[in-house]
Amino acid sequence: MPPREPYLLTPGPLTTSATVKAAMLRDWGSRDDAFIAMNSDVRKRVVALAGAEGTHVCVPLQGSGTFTVEAVLGTLVPRLGKLLVLVNGAYGRRMVESARYMGRSVEALEWPEDQTVGPQAVDDFLAGHKDVTHVAVVHCETTSGILNPIEGVAEVVAARGLPLIIDAMSAFGALPIDPHLAPFAAVAASSNKCLEGVPGMGLAIIQRDLLEQCKGNAHSLSLDLFAQWQGFERNGQWRFTPPTHVVAAFLQALDEHAAEGGIAGRGARYASNHRILVDGMEALGFRCLLPREVQAPIIVTFHMPADPKFDFPEFYERLSAKGFLIYPGKLTVADSFRIGCIGRLGETEMRAALEAVRCVIEDMGVHNCAPALAN
Amino acid sequence: MPPREPYLLTPGPLTTSATVKAAMLRDWGSRDDAFIAMNSDVRKRVVALAGAEGTHVCVPLQGSGTFTVEAVLGTLVPRLGKLLVLVNGAYGRRMVESARYMGRSVEALEWPEDQTVGPQAVDDFLAGHKDVTHVAVVHCETTSGILNPIEGVAEVVAARGLPLIIDAMSAFGALPIDPHLAPFAAVAASSNKCLEGVPGMGLAIIQRDLLEQCKGNAHSLSLDLFAQWQGFERNGQWRFTPPTHVVAAFLQALDEHAAEGGIAGRGARYASNHRILVDGMEALGFRCLLPREVQAPIIVTFHMPADPKFDFPEFYERLSAKGFLIYPGKLTVADSFRIGCIGRLGETEMRAALEAVRCVIEDMGVHNCAPALAN
Repeated sequence: MPPREPYLLTPGPLTTSATVKAAMLRDWGSRDDAFIAMNSDVRKRVVALAGAEGTHVCVPLQGSGTFTVEAVLGTLVPRLGKLLVLVNGAYGRRMVESARYMGRSVEALEWPEDQTVGPQAVDDFLAGHKDVTHVAVVHCETTSGILNPIEGVAEVVAARGLPLIIDAMSAFGALPIDPHLAPFAAVAASSNKCLEGVPGMGLAIIQRDLLEQCKGNAHSLSLDLFAQWQGFERNGQWRFTPPTHVVAAFLQALDEHAAEGGIAGRGARYASNHRILVDGMEALGFRCLLPREVQAPIIVTFHMPADPKFDFPEFYERLSAKGFLIYPGKLTVADSFRIGCIGRLGETEMRAALEAVRCVIEDMGVHNCAPALAN
Repeated sequence: MPPREPYLLTPGPLTTSATVKAAMLRDWGSRDDAFIAMNSDVRKRVVALAGAEGTHVCVPLQGSGTFTVEAVLGTLVPRLGKLLVLVNGAYGRRMVESARYMGRSVEALEWPEDQTVGPQAVDDFLAGHKDVTHVAVVHCETTSGILNPIEGVAEVVAARGLPLIIDAMSAFGALPIDPHLAPFAAVAASSNKCLEGVPGMGLAIIQRDLLEQCKGNAHSLSLDLFAQWQGFERNGQWRFTPPTHVVAAFLQALDEHAAEGGIAGRGARYASNHRILVDGMEALGFRCLLPREVQAPIIVTFHMPADPKFDFPEFYERLSAKGFLIYPGKLTVADSFRIGCIGRLGETEMRAALEAVRCVIEDMGVHNCAPALAN
C-alpha cells in the first residue's frame, strides 16, 4: 500500500486541496437562497477569470467537460450551420464526433498530434469554404500536451466575422485567455483541471448577444445552454438538480485560486512544476515528445523507453505503489506515456515523483530511458 | 442563523449522512484500478437492487437525473421509433419535451396531476396506435407525490410486446421494482434521492439484449448509453471524466442502504416518516392533495391554507431560519407546497419539523390551516 493517498499526476481528476474537499461536508438545498447566492458568485467570478465582464455570461452545466463542449456546439451552431474543427489530437476529434452525433454539418482541418494548428491554413481553408459558420479549436490539447496558438487562430476567424469556440478545458485558470487578444464566442472550461475543484460540472463562457439568438438550436434538453442560461437569469437556479457538493467545492477552489494570485499565480506554479518534471525526466534519460516552445505546462508526453526491461504497466504499478498515479499515452503517432503538472502539487511533490521514477527504473533494471528513435 | 445545518425536506438534493459526505474526502484517479473496481461494484449492486441480475446492466451517467432519463430515451428509442409517454405531472411532461428536442416522434397520454395513470387507458391507446414502439412512465411523480401503478402499466405494455421505460428517479431504493412483476426495458434512477448519495450522477438499468441493438440510436455523444456501456464493458472505465467524489460517496451510501435492510428497510423508514408527517400536518389543520392510497412515501403535497395570514414565502423563510428547508409546489391544478420524507432523516427529525411548523404558524398568527376548498 502507498504511504498516503496517491498524488494524481494526471490531467484530471487531479489532486485537490483538503480544504476544497472539506467544502463538500455539507448538504445544500438547491432552491434555497444560500445556494442561489453561491451560483451567482460562481458565475460572476468565472466570467471575470475569462476577462469577459460585460460581454459574456457563464453558464455552468452538470456532467464532465465533454458534456459542456457538446452543449456549446449544440447551442451555438444552428441546425443549418456548418462547423469547422481544428484537429491535432483526440479532443479536437471528439468535437467532430460530437457535431456528427447531433447532425450538424462539420469539417475537420487536421494537423499531426505533435504540431500546433496553423492560423494561415485556417485562413486559407475559410477562404475556400464560405459556408463555414463557426470555428472550434482546443487550447491545450492534452492528447500530447501541446499549446495551440489561439490568438493567431482567433485573429483570422474574427477577420472573417465568424464566432470562435475554444475548448479550454485543460488550460482555463492557468493559461490566460483574453477576449481582446483572442476574441471568442465561447470558451468551455471545467470545475476540475486548473481551477482545482472536483469533477462534476463544466463552465461555458458565452458571448451574451450571440447566446440570445440561440433559442431552439440545441439538440438536447439537458444540454441546451440557452435554456440553462435562461433558468439562471430567471431565478438564479439550475434547471435540473445541480451537483451541490461539487459547486460548494468549486467556490472554495475559486477562493484558493485567487489567494494564489489568480491565473498568473496558478500558471507560475504549474510552469515551475513543468520545468522540474521535464528537467528531472530528461536527466534520467527520458525524452519529451514536444519541443519546449509548443509544450503547455499542463501535461507532458514522454516517449516510451526502448530498453526491453521497460514495461509500462509495471512502471505504472510500481509508481502507483509509491503513491504516484501517471497517465497512459493517447497518441496515434508514437508510443508514449504522460505525466501531469497540474493539481494541488508543487516542487516537493514533483521532486518526490522524480525520485520515485528514479527508484522504479532502477528496480526494474532499466539502464536507458531513451526512446527507440533517439538510440 | 439556524442552530445547525438545515434538514432538507425536499425531493433532492436531500440530507445525506455524515459518513456519505466524508467518503468524498479523497481524490481518485479515474483510470486507476482502485476506481475501476469501485465502478464495477456500483454497477453490480444497482442491478441487484433492481432485481435484474442476468438480464439487465447498469450504466451510470454523469449529470442530473434528467440527463439519464434523456439518455435512456435517446439510446433506446430509434430515430424512426415512436414514444408514448404517460403524463400526470412535470416529469412526464419533461420526457415529452426531451423526445421533441431530439426529434423523436412522441405522443403524450395525459391524466390530471392528482390522478394515477390508468393501465386500461394505456391499453386502449395502444390498440389504436400500432405505430408506438416504446412506452415511458414515471414511477413516483414528485410533482404531486403520486405513486403510479407501474405493475399494471407494465402488464399491458408487455402484452403488446413493447419495451417499457420507467423514470424511477425519486423512488428507486425505497419502493420495490421487480422486473418479474413489472417487466421493464429500462429504469432510470439517481445516486441522490432514496439511495441517499450526493447528486451528480444517474443510473440507467437496461435490458442487455435490447441495449445491444441500440448502437447508433443516440442523438448525443455525451448521452449515448450504448457507447457508455461499451466503455464500461471494455475497460471498466467511464468514457469521460466521472464525478469521482460522487461515485465514492455513492458506494458508501449503498453500504448504508444495505445496512438499513435494503429497499425494505429504507422504504419502512420513509413510510414511517410519511405517516408522522401527514398525521402531524393534518392535526395542525393542513390538508393533503392526494388520498392516502395513491400517495407515495416520498414527498407530500399540501394545499395552501386559505387563512390570509398564511404567506408561503414567509412560512418558508421562518422554517428555514429554524433549520428546515421545504419545497414549493409544482402543481398546475392547485396552490400548494411540498414536504419530503426522504433523506437521512427519521422520527426525531420529522417530529422536530412538525414542531417547527407549529411554532411558525403560531408566530404568523395563522389560526386555520385548511385550504379554501375545504372551508
